[in-house]
Amino acid sequence: METEGWAVSDRVSIAAITRVVGRTRETDQDLVAVESPLELFLAHASRPAAESLGLLMRTPGDDGDLALGLLYAEGLITSAADIASVDVRPGPPASPDTPDRVVVTLGAQVEAPTGALKRALIATSACGLCGRLEMRRLATNAPTAHGTPMIDAEVVASLPSRLRRDQAVFAETGGLHAAALCDLSGEPWLMREDVGRHNAVDKVIGAALAQGRVPLSDSLLVVSGRVAYEIVQKAAAAAIPAVVAIGAPTSLAIDAARSASMTLVGFARDGRFNVYTGAHRIGT
Amino acid sequence: METEGWAVSDRVSIAAITRVVGRTRETDQDLVAVESPLELFLAHASRPAAESLGLLMRTPGDDGDLALGLLYAEGLITSAADIASVDVRPGPPASPDTPDRVVVTLGAQVEAPTGALKRALIATSACGLCGRLEMRRLATNAPTAHGTPMIDAEVVASLPSRLRRDQAVFAETGGLHAAALCDLSGEPWLMREDVGRHNAVDKVIGAALAQGRVPLSDSLLVVSGRVAYEIVQKAAAAAIPAVVAIGAPTSLAIDAARSASMTLVGFARDGRFNVYTGAHRIGT
Repeated sequence: METEGWAVSDRVSIAAITRVVGRTRETDQDLVAVESPLELFLAHASRPAAESLGLLMRTPGDDGDLALGLLYAEGLITSAADIASVDVRPGPPASPDTPDRVVVTLGAQVEAPTGALKRALIATSACGLCGRLEMRRLATNAPTAHGTPMIDAEVVASLPSRLRRDQAVFAETGGLHAAALCDLSGEPWLMREDVGRHNAVDKVIGAALAQGRVPLSDSLLVVSGRVAYEIVQKAAAAAIPAVVAIGAPTSLAIDAARSASMTLVGFARDGRFNVYTGAHRIGT
Repeated sequence: METEGWAVSDRVSIAAITRVVGRTRETDQDLVAVESPLELFLAHASRPAAESLGLLMRTPGDDGDLALGLLYAEGLITSAADIASVDVRPGPPASPDTPDRVVVTLGAQVEAPTGALKRALIATSACGLCGRLEMRRLATNAPTAHGTPMIDAEVVASLPSRLRRDQAVFAETGGLHAAALCDLSGEPWLMREDVGRHNAVDKVIGAALAQGRVPLSDSLLVVSGRVAYEIVQKAAAAAIPAVVAIGAPTSLAIDAARSASMTLVGFARDGRFNVYTGAHRIGT
């Protein structure tokens, strides 16, 4: 009978493992990143019955930010002023059938979204299926190219180590994606980690939104992994002028960044990086 | 004016980049993994008007397998016999508004899925939002523990290098996830790569389904990255007894693997690995 894991915090748990090296095996413990379901509900001040938008698999913590970031990326809200309340309700402990919940109530001044829009949200918010392609909306919030170059190459090269320095849970578990918002001198002012790479981005943008700091036209978004289309889409919606990834970009991420006049950097590691679009923003 | 990328194959394109190393910068080219939308349609032999289930961002190739694997993982089909036809229709070149399409037509003997089931499919198929938690279905197809140990520790330790050897596009771009089905001696007999980790798993399981090789009770699933809940769910649905990941597992992946009596290995690299569940299957 294997021992079940137990929680160290809401973000890290301990698993009993068998560690195998060559022909030796020993029982040991390992720290693992927590993944657990969060059910997202949307309500409206004029009609407060909340409606479920589905389950989101995430690392617990900053659930309100996650919900706001997701709703913002999908265009259901445009600022924190659209929100009447965000209510995070933890589920009972050790009850997988009753997940944690977050209820976002839209203010009376905001038009209640239609069923079709809500379905589109569910379909678009995950990395697999998109309800639609939104190249057009990308352009609306496109950052301008005025005043460039605005980011020093040395700043870009310093971002991976700054991200790693602040990435506490990853260091313990190796299991989390990180996203950080940095100022133009490369200093991270907001960082979030999550088992889902899109969640980490939604959390930082949602937190920035709650702080009234969106549009983020003076911030860089740094992400720990690869960058696909949806990360660029989320950054563009928040008017972020540059995305710096430790990993590789996809072809569509590059196309979307170009459409949004955004700077896209990939493979930022060991003091070097590749600029895929918007190299004019980077000075030496 | 930046040069746009051009295609090398349907899976790899060339991007014009600025390569920055310290204070030097040079223009160069980089190979990037292709990400492009695929619209998934479901039809029924008795009523062949196809209905869109939404857009899937994927690396082109094996689109029929991807669709089958996705429908299988979500329980809409149980074998290749449920399918009347799979029709892949490339969109016109260079027309992002008209994506490639795949139309899966269910046979007349299969009950047509309800609208609710189709919406659940859209909601569950991506890594972010799940329509429901399916611990119960996991158990139904759970592999048995008879005849263990069935996998040699040396075989497990050899899997990362075997996966890397066969991972052609990743080697070029650094931008793809891989999934492989291996026999119990560790020999990969089916491998697929995709920008989406769930897509790579859906593609191998869909291809195995098309070959009549599901349930996969004599195969191991090897994945190039981290392993979260949904990867375990997909493997369990196909009765795969062991999942070996190069990266970290999440807490919920471990819980799901335990519920499904599955062996879950993580951090398989450099001749060592951690066994999170089902260590009895691994012999020395």
